[in-house]
Amino acid sequence: MEKKFMQLAIELAVENVKNGGGPFGAVIVKDGDIIATGVNRVTSGCDPTAHAEVSAIRAACGKLHTFSLEGCEIYSSCEPCPMCLGAIYWAHITRLYYGCNKEDAAKAGFDDAFIYKELSLSPQERSMKTEILLPEEARRAFEAWEVNDERIDY
Amino acid sequence: MEKKFMQLAIELAVENVKNGGGPFGAVIVKDGDIIATGVNRVTSGCDPTAHAEVSAIRAACGKLHTFSLEGCEIYSSCEPCPMCLGAIYWAHITRLYYGCNKEDAAKAGFDDAFIYKELSLSPQERSMKTEILLPEEARRAFEAWEVNDERIDY
Repeated sequence: MEKKFMQLAIELAVENVKNGGGPFGAVIVKDGDIIATGVNRVTSGCDPTAHAEVSAIRAACGKLHTFSLEGCEIYSSCEPCPMCLGAIYWAHITRLYYGCNKEDAAKAGFDDAFIYKELSLSPQERSMKTEILLPEEARRAFEAWEVNDERIDY
Repeated sequence: MEKKFMQLAIELAVENVKNGGGPFGAVIVKDGDIIATGVNRVTSGCDPTAHAEVSAIRAACGKLHTFSLEGCEIYSSCEPCPMCLGAIYWAHITRLYYGCNKEDAAKAGFDDAFIYKELSLSPQERSMKTEILLPEEARRAFEAWEVNDERIDY
């Protein structure tokens, strides 16, 4: 654990506000070296997935030419939202440090706490209108996957 | 609700397996028109965030030059994982249709159900090692955000 990496994540977040972005920054570190950083470019980049953590993960994977960041740590200026926490799990990041929490984010007008609550509900209970469609036909994709000897599991 | 859009999402998923990708496809529709499609390119693209839904959202936002897909529907061949469902909320998509569910995905070797379970736990209970670091200092970013009159809320 290195405070200097969190300080950098916070500095990136503060700077990003000045540059027209959201108040979030993230730093990915491996063996004490910074692999990549990311900031929130949702509105400026027309990309609702361009949160700091997702951006940092994409940059780190591009740099290391891998889809797994096992052995890496991520320092985020704020508790990751469900999208970003999901991305952190999928990237197999080993350890997470965060500064502010989702209640701080909610106070500043961000939907993190709401989305966490929605995800904890069943699809039928969520505010997002959701329907299941052609489930049997959809399993064809997994059947194709399971018989594909060249598949790369992740 | 149009079965043909789900059929396309499934077809994209099946085709993607043949092309070395994961068994997932998604289609974004507005007013009956297809805006964008996406497939899973995690391993082939070295990007753990390149799930079908995230890829489709990024493509749709790029095409429409917006960070909000309000009024759009998304058709996904499989129930979105927490990362993708978070992205769907952040994109303000209006309606979700999916085919297979997270249990089908788990049977095919994907971590969706595990990640849903992890997100429902408190940070201290999760298998991901998590620590809070410099929370007071981190609030500087939100303070800078709140006094910025030019901020774009989303």
